[in-house]
Amino acid sequence: MKLDKLVGDRFKERPSDCNIDSHALMVRGGYMKYVANGIFSSYMPLKRVTRKIEQIIREEMDAIDGQEVMFPVVMPATMWQESGRYESIGSELLRFSDRNKAQMVLGMTHEEAAVHLVREYANSYTKYPFMIYQIQTKFRDEARPRGGLIRVREFTMKDAYSFHTSQEDLEEYYYRCHKAYERIYARAGIPEVISVASDSGMMGGSISHEFMLLTPIGEDSIAICKKCGYRANMEAAASIIENTRDDVSEALTEVYTPNIHTIEEICDFLKTPTDKSCKAVVYQRNSDDHYIVIFIRGDLDINETKLTNHLGYDVHPAVITEECGLNAGYIGPVGLNVNGGCTVLYDKSLMNTNNLSCGANKEEYHYTGLDISRDVGEVEYIDLAKIIDGGICPECGAHEISISRGIEVGNIFQLGTKYSKSMGMTYLDKDGNAQTPIMGCYGIGVGRLAASVCEAHHDDYGPIWPMAIAPWQVHICAVRSDDAQVKENADKLYAELQSRGVEVIYDDRSNVSAGVMFSDADLLGCPIRLVVSPRNLKDGVIEVAARDKSFSEKLAPEAVADRVQALIKEMLTIKE
Amino acid sequence: MKLDKLVGDRFKERPSDCNIDSHALMVRGGYMKYVANGIFSSYMPLKRVTRKIEQIIREEMDAIDGQEVMFPVVMPATMWQESGRYESIGSELLRFSDRNKAQMVLGMTHEEAAVHLVREYANSYTKYPFMIYQIQTKFRDEARPRGGLIRVREFTMKDAYSFHTSQEDLEEYYYRCHKAYERIYARAGIPEVISVASDSGMMGGSISHEFMLLTPIGEDSIAICKKCGYRANMEAAASIIENTRDDVSEALTEVYTPNIHTIEEICDFLKTPTDKSCKAVVYQRNSDDHYIVIFIRGDLDINETKLTNHLGYDVHPAVITEECGLNAGYIGPVGLNVNGGCTVLYDKSLMNTNNLSCGANKEEYHYTGLDISRDVGEVEYIDLAKIIDGGICPECGAHEISISRGIEVGNIFQLGTKYSKSMGMTYLDKDGNAQTPIMGCYGIGVGRLAASVCEAHHDDYGPIWPMAIAPWQVHICAVRSDDAQVKENADKLYAELQSRGVEVIYDDRSNVSAGVMFSDADLLGCPIRLVVSPRNLKDGVIEVAARDKSFSEKLAPEAVADRVQALIKEMLTIKE
Repeated sequence: MKLDKLVGDRFKERPSDCNIDSHALMVRGGYMKYVANGIFSSYMPLKRVTRKIEQIIREEMDAIDGQEVMFPVVMPATMWQESGRYESIGSELLRFSDRNKAQMVLGMTHEEAAVHLVREYANSYTKYPFMIYQIQTKFRDEARPRGGLIRVREFTMKDAYSFHTSQEDLEEYYYRCHKAYERIYARAGIPEVISVASDSGMMGGSISHEFMLLTPIGEDSIAICKKCGYRANMEAAASIIENTRDDVSEALTEVYTPNIHTIEEICDFLKTPTDKSCKAVVYQRNSDDHYIVIFIRGDLDINETKLTNHLGYDVHPAVITEECGLNAGYIGPVGLNVNGGCTVLYDKSLMNTNNLSCGANKEEYHYTGLDISRDVGEVEYIDLAKIIDGGICPECGAHEISISRGIEVGNIFQLGTKYSKSMGMTYLDKDGNAQTPIMGCYGIGVGRLAASVCEAHHDDYGPIWPMAIAPWQVHICAVRSDDAQVKENADKLYAELQSRGVEVIYDDRSNVSAGVMFSDADLLGCPIRLVVSPRNLKDGVIEVAARDKSFSEKLAPEAVADRVQALIKEMLTIKE
Repeated sequence: MKLDKLVGDRFKERPSDCNIDSHALMVRGGYMKYVANGIFSSYMPLKRVTRKIEQIIREEMDAIDGQEVMFPVVMPATMWQESGRYESIGSELLRFSDRNKAQMVLGMTHEEAAVHLVREYANSYTKYPFMIYQIQTKFRDEARPRGGLIRVREFTMKDAYSFHTSQEDLEEYYYRCHKAYERIYARAGIPEVISVASDSGMMGGSISHEFMLLTPIGEDSIAICKKCGYRANMEAAASIIENTRDDVSEALTEVYTPNIHTIEEICDFLKTPTDKSCKAVVYQRNSDDHYIVIFIRGDLDINETKLTNHLGYDVHPAVITEECGLNAGYIGPVGLNVNGGCTVLYDKSLMNTNNLSCGANKEEYHYTGLDISRDVGEVEYIDLAKIIDGGICPECGAHEISISRGIEVGNIFQLGTKYSKSMGMTYLDKDGNAQTPIMGCYGIGVGRLAASVCEAHHDDYGPIWPMAIAPWQVHICAVRSDDAQVKENADKLYAELQSRGVEVIYDDRSNVSAGVMFSDADLLGCPIRLVVSPRNLKDGVIEVAARDKSFSEKLAPEAVADRVQALIKEMLTIKE
């Protein structure tokens, strides 16, 4: 491929609307173009990267006995009504009517379609286990697409579905798939991806893992124990708090606290630490605005995923109206009164506490000396708090939890029988009894993986693509191609490498400076760069350099092709 | 791949709802499953066929300097409003609103997206020519999906778009693409595909070709001149009619014709040939039900594509109400009167005629002796008729036109400036003047191509896949795999072929008869079948047979792998 015919502009300046490097570099490098909110077109360099990623995924899925199939993007709503998700999923599931007024949806995931495809086939235990997967366009009508390819509405995803006759068999396969995912990330150049226990959210099921690339720009938070290696998504990590009660519980005392609304203000005013306070956080149920008041230790925050999992319905931060009876800024557990009633929850961080400050449910007044068991009575304490940096590891108990940010580059779920049961899929076991199969599902977003590799491997000048997924393996810069010797040597090298099956992008533009050539090469990020220039040729050499600056060699022209092939082989070796 | 783990059922009986063989065999063979009207899921065998077809297409597009890109499935309506197609295309363009009430469409073709992707980039003549293409899911909300994969609503299509600075350059590229298409069909095993001139329909532009696989089940009609080789879609073929006037024009005479409504009836009654009659065909404009009355020679039919192209708007067969003033069955050109007015057109087949019968615009009366030039006056004659079998070739003038049926397996269009102009795409030419680029577009439906190959190559027992696109190259049947020697030989062969990179499906089921094994192998249609059986092994041989029955050999087990590799190589050689 000659660079001067490559469709797509490359830009020197960072676009102002790009918050993360991978997005900025992929726009600057002519990889992608904005079409609509969360919807992009891909130019050839990105298409080549994603196709290579798809092939790696395909090979690894085939290696664990996956069968590639294809489900439709457009599905009848009836299929989603069978599983119950047509009602349970919010507006991220795009619903519409076709010309015959039939209700349809755009596939955001394909559990229903997978069950539909195999439910007549897999009617006997002898057909199990099996796994089917596809690599296909998905649409998820995200409220807030962001980060370029990190969170989009339309994306290409590999989604796999396995079917089993026992939990043990599922777990064995789940483990094989976990290993396959590790190989995929290693081959794609990010072996540093870790798996963390996660919350299964709308997918159903219990055990699940997310594969995380740790990076400060990640939108997920991960709790990692520095001692035992425990890792979990914040949403799944149990928050363990150890409190010590003061020997003497002081009396519950009303204090005049004018213009004091926040926990920090009241603790400042009372000169007590925030962990000696009881904070109120208020939500409302989405369906009817019913109030939910949660009390939690003043230094901690609510994990909304834990909250909605506990409640079983969706909530939003409350709008506190005058009519509701709540005194915003002064809400506390003693004398709490909400017109029309409310749900009251206590986080585990309040267990075994006393002498807390809290709101007095009265404008401009707080209490000190709160002892919940004495002043409220016996209450149930539930884990609703976000685990904190320096907190206690739920696995080993050490105070060694650290919180990191990460991008989720894949996930695996033990679905159980959620879909097979609701959709009436059964098989006959050895004894002729009807059983419900157990399922697992396994996803990887292709574009997000490409962007994540770029996040992990780039410098200010462009992506540094790993050999296995680079748009081209080699970038030839013919500096001063108007020089006959340069042109001849570069043309020869281009032809030679292509004849050996090497993927080459060839820049033989005579109307741009060496500087422009090199910055274009940086933006395309091919791992090996060959520089043919009058100066090099005067010395009888061609320069062979790595995009990541790890080496730069000068070789006789006739030695270059062999060296390039050896380098490609070496750089394709998986580093785990 | 072991057959006993292949997901999907195979059926002995032809499904009653399948009208064409490819559909029936693909359902029977476990290739596809119905999801909704015109929407299917694919099992592994079909996915493997289509992936191979996609790779052939990709290689041939790359060979003519195509750059693979990716456009979104979901596009903003604004993009289609720019080109004007948001209004001009009917309900086959699926429109919907996203969660933010933005109007979106599902991509059925991507001219708009292609212009959008390159319109800033291609701002100088130096960037031209170039071609971009994608292989992506499309959705077209067809009113009447049918024929399995032949006419569906959701499909995978390769769509390519080329951009040029002159008509000559477009034509040169168009010809290269035509050649590439011929190679694609030859490689996919249907070199017999022919190209025919076609009507460009909603794509705009003027010159276009369809690639047709001739088959009686095709839904297109193609006019082919047996003398000069002229080929055109019926919709594009000019209808040439040579009339000879009778020496004497008789007087226009009203005849009482009770209970006579059709051309056949009146000609029977009058004992005149149908080509001595003037038939009226009535349509209505879709937008406001305005009437259009067309007069045509009684033995010919209207080509609706020619009609709508001439009118510039869509029409439907008329509903003739009592109020409109038309006398259904008695409509003629003399004394025609429609309440509210109507458009009247005359087909060229009425030129140079006289002594015709026609309706008298009066219940139960016809005229004889019609001479349009005398009785109506000078009218414009337009070509609106369907070309007929035995008709006159528009190219060479011979009466040698024959009409064949065909499946359209691809199309290429010279679009001109329809999209670049409406979407404001310009470039600066050598002299610094702004110009509008000229476009071509080039489509192939992947699933339809797979089904078409199956139509062209099958027997009663299943598809006969050409080597290049077969789901697997080799099918091993281990008959009586409970026999240790059979199992050992078959296992060894399976391992040996796989180690050589041969694609093998291996049937080692011990619980089915040889008959079931062979019919399953027929349904999967792999070109080479190896039969390992006690009887063969007793003779010291393994059977190597072709699915198309062109050969059957018995070879010593150790000779089989070499022979298979040689056969694969031979069968991959393109037959043009």
